[in-house]
Amino acid sequence: MTIKLIGYAASGPTTKVIITLKELGIPYELDPPATYQSLKDDDYIKNKHPFGKMPVLFDGDFRITESRAICRYLASKYQGKYNDTILLPNDVHQASLVDQYISYESFYYDPPLSKIVYQEKVAKKFFDKDPDLEVIKENREELAKVLDVFEKLLEGKEYLNGECSLADLFICPNTYHVYCIDAHSDLWDSRPNVKNWWNRLCNRDSVKTTFEEIKSFWENN
Amino acid sequence: MTIKLIGYAASGPTTKVIITLKELGIPYELDPPATYQSLKDDDYIKNKHPFGKMPVLFDGDFRITESRAICRYLASKYQGKYNDTILLPNDVHQASLVDQYISYESFYYDPPLSKIVYQEKVAKKFFDKDPDLEVIKENREELAKVLDVFEKLLEGKEYLNGECSLADLFICPNTYHVYCIDAHSDLWDSRPNVKNWWNRLCNRDSVKTTFEEIKSFWENN
Repeated sequence: MTIKLIGYAASGPTTKVIITLKELGIPYELDPPATYQSLKDDDYIKNKHPFGKMPVLFDGDFRITESRAICRYLASKYQGKYNDTILLPNDVHQASLVDQYISYESFYYDPPLSKIVYQEKVAKKFFDKDPDLEVIKENREELAKVLDVFEKLLEGKEYLNGECSLADLFICPNTYHVYCIDAHSDLWDSRPNVKNWWNRLCNRDSVKTTFEEIKSFWENN
Repeated sequence: MTIKLIGYAASGPTTKVIITLKELGIPYELDPPATYQSLKDDDYIKNKHPFGKMPVLFDGDFRITESRAICRYLASKYQGKYNDTILLPNDVHQASLVDQYISYESFYYDPPLSKIVYQEKVAKKFFDKDPDLEVIKENREELAKVLDVFEKLLEGKEYLNGECSLADLFICPNTYHVYCIDAHSDLWDSRPNVKNWWNRLCNRDSVKTTFEEIKSFWENN
């Protein structure tokens, strides 16, 4: 039974799932919606995602929505099946610490990053609007404070919880978009632990090949 | 070994954990920080929460932060120990659907609700600022759309995933604050499935006693 992932390869939340699928060696098919507008169709709302969002994953008849919930499902059900990679530890304390780092990613790291991505990448390309420099400035400052905390959290560790986990992989998509803009890469490069962590993530096969696909998407669309 | 919870009984994230502790029948001690400002002290940042937030839970030497991660830890480690309540199903598919509903709560339901709570309850009491009526109006409209989706999700079900789970309990604290304001209770009462779901939650012992404690806090502080 093939796993079907509904989403766009270059969309941040979908990319989280693609990286997780690759890490765990799970075969899948990507099924991009015909148009972005079709996410708001009655049929999509009823049978795919009630809030009209991506990604959605079908594992046979089982449907699950929301990128982080999908990735947790994939790790809980399939890790250890296709390779030895563990993204969600079996030990309850270690698993809970991964949850904690996912919360840092979701509520502190990602919000300012997402706002910069919107201004720098989405506003111009899809809505023909100039980026709001004040919004970028505010969120750069916010992100710098978060990265100062991450610099301490990563002291003496290769990844947030020691071993690579879902928490590290989740930061990849939006970090990639902002890091590739010359004016912002200093946020990561000026902090040694953060810089090494980011380079370590970029060198993982799952992340490297996914970034190549995103690059190709932005060059061709 | 007693579980120690650092936080204020009336603070939304801490309340999520208190309700979960009560649901699972876990003994605990609440340890409120001396002042709100002390959360930004070096000692608190270093030994409690690196972002200077509440709540933090200590289970012996094990420390875990972030309300949703703490509740997941408590359910994973202790459900079935003190009573029969199950808040995180053992079946991987059912557990993943609870994760999905937690994601709806975290990213669609809670954000507009939090903004209304801030304007209606926090701004005046703690910062002596009048509520911004435009912000309240925008977020009421956003919340109404989310509740329309919840009305459909709850069709034929007592709780979001059938049985009561962490996803339902997480909506309680901020819903309580806004529902208690006469001008906003119609958001829940005008949607039959949502209204019944909310009444069902309010009648659970864990929720009822916690709301009494919050009411007492607001009357005495």
